[in-house]
This record gives sequence, structure tokens and C-alpha cells, in this order.
Amino acid sequence: MIPVDPERFLADLHHLRSFGAAGTGKGVVRQAFSEPDIAARTWLRDQYGAAGLDPQVDATGTVWGLAEGPSLLIGSHSDSQPEGGWLDGALGVICGLEIARAARGVGLPVSAVSFQDEEGRFGVTTGSRIWSGNVSLQEADTLCDASGVTFAEARALMSHLVTGEVDPSRFTGFIECHIEQGPWLDAADEAVGVVTDIVGIRDMRITYFGEQNHAGTTPMHRRKDAFQAMLQFQQLIAERFRNVVTPQTVWTTGAVDVHPGSHSIVPGRCSFAMQWRDGDRDRLDRMEQILREAAQEVADQTGMRLETSGMLGLQPVPMDAALQSALGDAAEAQLPGRWRRMQSGALHDAASVANHMPVAMLFVPSINGISHDFAEDTAEADLVAGLKVLAEAVETVLT
Amino acid sequence: MIPVDPERFLADLHHLRSFGAAGTGKGVVRQAFSEPDIAARTWLRDQYGAAGLDPQVDATGTVWGLAEGPSLLIGSHSDSQPEGGWLDGALGVICGLEIARAARGVGLPVSAVSFQDEEGRFGVTTGSRIWSGNVSLQEADTLCDASGVTFAEARALMSHLVTGEVDPSRFTGFIECHIEQGPWLDAADEAVGVVTDIVGIRDMRITYFGEQNHAGTTPMHRRKDAFQAMLQFQQLIAERFRNVVTPQTVWTTGAVDVHPGSHSIVPGRCSFAMQWRDGDRDRLDRMEQILREAAQEVADQTGMRLETSGMLGLQPVPMDAALQSALGDAAEAQLPGRWRRMQSGALHDAASVANHMPVAMLFVPSINGISHDFAEDTAEADLVAGLKVLAEAVETVLT
Repeated sequence: MIPVDPERFLADLHHLRSFGAAGTGKGVVRQAFSEPDIAARTWLRDQYGAAGLDPQVDATGTVWGLAEGPSLLIGSHSDSQPEGGWLDGALGVICGLEIARAARGVGLPVSAVSFQDEEGRFGVTTGSRIWSGNVSLQEADTLCDASGVTFAEARALMSHLVTGEVDPSRFTGFIECHIEQGPWLDAADEAVGVVTDIVGIRDMRITYFGEQNHAGTTPMHRRKDAFQAMLQFQQLIAERFRNVVTPQTVWTTGAVDVHPGSHSIVPGRCSFAMQWRDGDRDRLDRMEQILREAAQEVADQTGMRLETSGMLGLQPVPMDAALQSALGDAAEAQLPGRWRRMQSGALHDAASVANHMPVAMLFVPSINGISHDFAEDTAEADLVAGLKVLAEAVETVLT
Repeated sequence: MIPVDPERFLADLHHLRSFGAAGTGKGVVRQAFSEPDIAARTWLRDQYGAAGLDPQVDATGTVWGLAEGPSLLIGSHSDSQPEGGWLDGALGVICGLEIARAARGVGLPVSAVSFQDEEGRFGVTTGSRIWSGNVSLQEADTLCDASGVTFAEARALMSHLVTGEVDPSRFTGFIECHIEQGPWLDAADEAVGVVTDIVGIRDMRITYFGEQNHAGTTPMHRRKDAFQAMLQFQQLIAERFRNVVTPQTVWTTGAVDVHPGSHSIVPGRCSFAMQWRDGDRDRLDRMEQILREAAQEVADQTGMRLETSGMLGLQPVPMDAALQSALGDAAEAQLPGRWRRMQSGALHDAASVANHMPVAMLFVPSINGISHDFAEDTAEADLVAGLKVLAEAVETVLT
């Protein structure tokens, strides 16, 4: 096994947390291009340099530590949610640093990376999507965050660090270690999960336009209540999804806007989010068809106008068989009976990188399944177990 | 019939609109205690004086024009919604001015009034509720508007106009003329409606507390989705209301807050308004029982915490039989076959005033049922028809 140093690894992981440490527990506030994020990336660049790697920063703010010649890439992202935990992304980044550093000591070519804005201040996995060609830098530059700042304006804050672009063809593959952000490993007392595939996502906004009116003087049969149309729609899809979904499928309405939002006014407009995820592209498509038909049926029945936003559609991404198998063998060797193969319900940078090379992912447990919250945590023994499985798998892949 | 002057009446009505005239159509922006509202009330006080009535302003900002001795009170309110029409309240106020003026000319004792803040910048029918003893001035003084201004601060803006309090016992009854704010008269091409009762209102906020979580990694069976709990609740009450409600009953969810409101996060909290109205107190109570039981059932089934706000409960108010009958006789004499008896689904000052004396209400049509909107309007012929029915009924009552 590549001779990783668990204590150095944990010390670096805790040091990374010091950039933007906040909130209760091990909370972190380190959104892409914030002051703590830029400070963390500058520190990381210096660590790559100190490890003998060639430190690079590209135009998106992604930070690289490059080995010479063709190499295996290990990493994740060091930016956080507006209120995040200390491991989401950070774990994979410090795994990359430690393994690249240790691999260099034994003459194995491993590069490391921290992609920029995985958490989506400007969309979804912004840095890795640009790097992998899913979106052009020019298009991305026009994206705005919630307060109206453009990606172009934000990345200008890191322009003094930029060294140039990094050619994807120099890498032979990518492995990302990440916390699970779900309950399965923790509930089963298992130490690692080898990811089989990253689910696809569909995301859109649906709006019904009814008639705003007085809630006292408008009889029920005369109403065009946009909130009631939304209720009808939700009931319809709940029924129709039953024979289509699997226990892995998820769907969510996480944002709702009822207009004008007064107790005494029949809502004239109701706008709401629909997001659904599954590992099977056909199933995602069938769900989309059900959603669109149901939305239209309700509009027709109620005589309301329906508007649907453009749809974000990310396809499911299968992990590379050879890399998966190296991770599985290493897990079985080190943690017999305490690991599983599993799907990733969350999106990760690996999904973007898969455009260019074989990719794989390794999960460690999230205590109580918590993530995107200050309370996010993982036992240090599990963090180290993940590092060691990764180190052994990387050695297998490279030798 | 008391010799009312339709042209003078319409001229005054249009003049009142000039205070805060805004928006499209005949829109008015004249919220309680705003500059246009205080200007309108000052003008009104002077009109009462010019008509030979004793002009008074009480501590709440309600403006009175008092006849000598025991008198019948006619009026409504001259404050508007944040975006209102020219007739909502204003019509009843100018009916009061015109009838009191004309009645004085023939020796009949009619007083006039414009109650303050019927539209509820500080709650619900604030001025008339204080005057009728439903809420004390001391309590009301602590009420805040949406921007944090207290009622005490707002009414201080009118303190230079205040003359003293007006004793309710000087009035023998109250009649309020108002636009319908609903579709019935307009749809049937009828000219006036004699109100039988003002519906009661119950209003509360219900909140489910679930568990905020990742919308990709949290399987459906592990979720405590507060939005889904709200859906279950809405479905349950829709079923259970069926055998309880009448075609006059209404219920509304007009405000919904889904927290934290992200496409990718399972909502941890969902807070929503429930308001229901009916003319029958027992039915209102039965609906409340259904709501509370359904809310608790869903909380129990889903393992969520339920919170319900304090409830606003206004009882239905029957109109006085003798006054109703005088209005009905006058309507039938002047508009045979073009009037009806009907319920008021909207709350009005008459509901407060009923604490102290016999009350009645007369409706004129709202074109397309529109109100609380700049587009609110009524044909001038219908406005005059209402005035004349009212004038004849007042004469009957007083002679």
C-alpha cells in the first residue's frame, strides 16, 4: 500500500477546516470565491508545491497539484455550502494531497485537485463542468449567484493566482473520495462504500396561473385557486409514480411560492420546484412524461395557464469497472464484510470528469446521514479507513 | 324618500377618490393613517360640518358627523387596501354623508361615520372593533403593521384632529352600504343585495416540523418531508369537509412557507395558513374540529411535530330583522325583481358595530366580482340605485 500518513492526513483535514470554521460542531462557511475559500485554495496550492507537485490554478479557480507525465487524478472540492460541514468535498481534497504526496515518495504518478464551486453558488459542479466541457467558460461567465454577482466577477477575485489551463489528457483516471451524505453506511455500521453509479437528475419549476381573488366573497366553485391546482398535481403524480419508481428513486418539491401570499386572498399563482433522481435514464424519462402530462391535465381541468421552466437534465453516470474493482478488492482486503457497493444519490465532480476519463468514487459514512449542515461528521477511524482503501486501490491501479 | 341628490353624491364620491388616486382605472392607495387618508378624513370632517352635523374625530381616527339627539348611523370606512379601488368603504361613507345631509333638510336625525383602518393595516376592522369594545385601545396600541409601526405611533399622526369619544348609546341603529366584492349580483344583473348575515371567520397558521435533508441521498422511506405532510393534511380535510360544508362555505390556504426552500433539500418545515368562513357558528366549529384532528393525525402518522398558531375567531353576525325588512321593502318598491337577500362573505364594520345596536347592510354589484384591486368598479346607475334604496329605507325606519 502507498505509505500514507494518517496523522498528517487528519492534521491537514483539520487545518483546511480552519478556513471558514463557523457555526456549531465542525461547521464551515466557505462558499466558492469567498475570502476563506480563496485563502484555503492558496494554502492548498502551497501544500501541493511543498509535496513536490507542480501547483497550478486554472481560470475557474480550480487548484491542481500535478505529477509529471501521465498520472491518476485524486481529489474533490474545497468550497462549501453556505452552511456546510468540514468533510463535504474537503475529505476528497485532502485524500488527494496525502496520496499524491505519499505516492511521489514511492515513485508513483498521482495528481491532486480541488475543483471550484462544486456546491453550486453559480449552478451545479461549476468548475468541473467547465473543465470537462459540459459548459463553456463564456457561458458560465454570465451565470449569477443569488445576490446577482456573475461568475466572471467572482473568478476575477482569483485572477492573480491563475497559472493556466490543465489538459485532461494527461490523466489516466479520476477517483473521488467523499462522505456518503446519506444514511446507509452509518445505519449498517459499514466503513466504506464503492460507488457503482451516480444517479441522474431532472429539475424544473412548474407554475400555475389562476385568478387572485377575495377569500371571503369568492365561492369555491368560482375559484381558480393556483395552490389547489398544485395540490391536484401532487396527488396525481404520487399515484402515477407508484408503478414506475424503485426504492432508490427520489422526488422532491423543495421550494414553493404562493402568490400573493395572504390568508384572505385566493392564490392567483403557485410556482413550485420538481426534482427527481434515479440511476436509470429511461425511468427518469418516464417520470418526466408523467409529470408533464399530469401538469397539463390539471391545467386543462381547472382552466388555468401552465408554465414550465427549462429543465436541468443530468444523465446517470456509471463508474469505471476496473477502478470500481480495484476499490472493491482493497475494501474487501482491509475491511472484510464492512463495505458495500452502492449508488450515489448526490451529484459529484466525478460525474463531470467522466466526460474525459474513467472515474470512480469511494464513500465513507456520514454520522446519522447528515450533510449540508454544521452537524455533518464522520468518525476519524472511518476517515482513515477510507484513506487506506483508496491508497491500496491506487497502488493496484498504478502497478 | 329622503331627498338625496345623486349628482352631489357622485361628485363627493369622485372627490374622495382624489385623495390617493393611483394605479390604473379608478385605483386608490389610501391606507389608514397615510397622508392621503388623513387628508381625506380632514376633508370629510369639513363636509360633515358644512352639512350642519357636529364633526368629531375620536382617538382611533374615526371621523363622525353627529345629528342632535338619538339618531340612525350610516357609514363605512374611507381607508383603502395597499392597492384598492375607489368604492370599497368609500361608497358607504359618502352614502352616509349624503343621507345625513338630506335627512337634516327634512328634520330626520341621521349621523354619519367613517371608521378608521377597516382594511386592517393593524389587524381587522381596527377602528370599529375598538369603538365597539371588541378590543381595548390599550391592546390595539401595541399592534404593528407589516413594517413595524405601532397603532399608537400611527394614530399620533391624527392627534391634532381628535375632539373626543363618541358614545354608542346615542345611535338607534347602523346601516352600512358597500360594494358586494363578489360575483353574485353582477352575474344575475341585479342592482342591490340586502344582507342577511355576515359570515364568521376562523383563521390560523399550521406548521409541520420534519427533518431537513439532502434531496438526493435521503430515500423516500427515510424522509420526514414537512411539505408532504402539508399535502396529506390538505387531502384529508378536502375529503372530510365534503359532508359538512354548504355551497356558501369557503376555505382557503393563501400563504405557504416551505423551509429552507431549495430544489435540492427535503423541506424540514412547512408553515401554511388555513382560513374558513361560514354563516353558521356550529359549522365553523365542526370544521375547526376536522382541521385540528386531521393536522394531529398527519403529525402522528409521519412522526412530525405540529404547531398551530392562536386562532382568530370572529362569529357570524345576523343583520337586524327590522332594518333588513325596511331595506327589502325599499328595494322591492324601487327595483322589483332586481334585488336579493344574500350573505356577506367579507367582513365589514357592521359586524363590530352589532355589539351595540341593530345593524344592517346593503350591497351594490361589483363588476366581474372584482375588489381589493385597482380594477374594482360599479356602474354609476347601480351606485345611485343603492343610495335611493338606502334613503327610502332610512325614511321608513325614522318615521
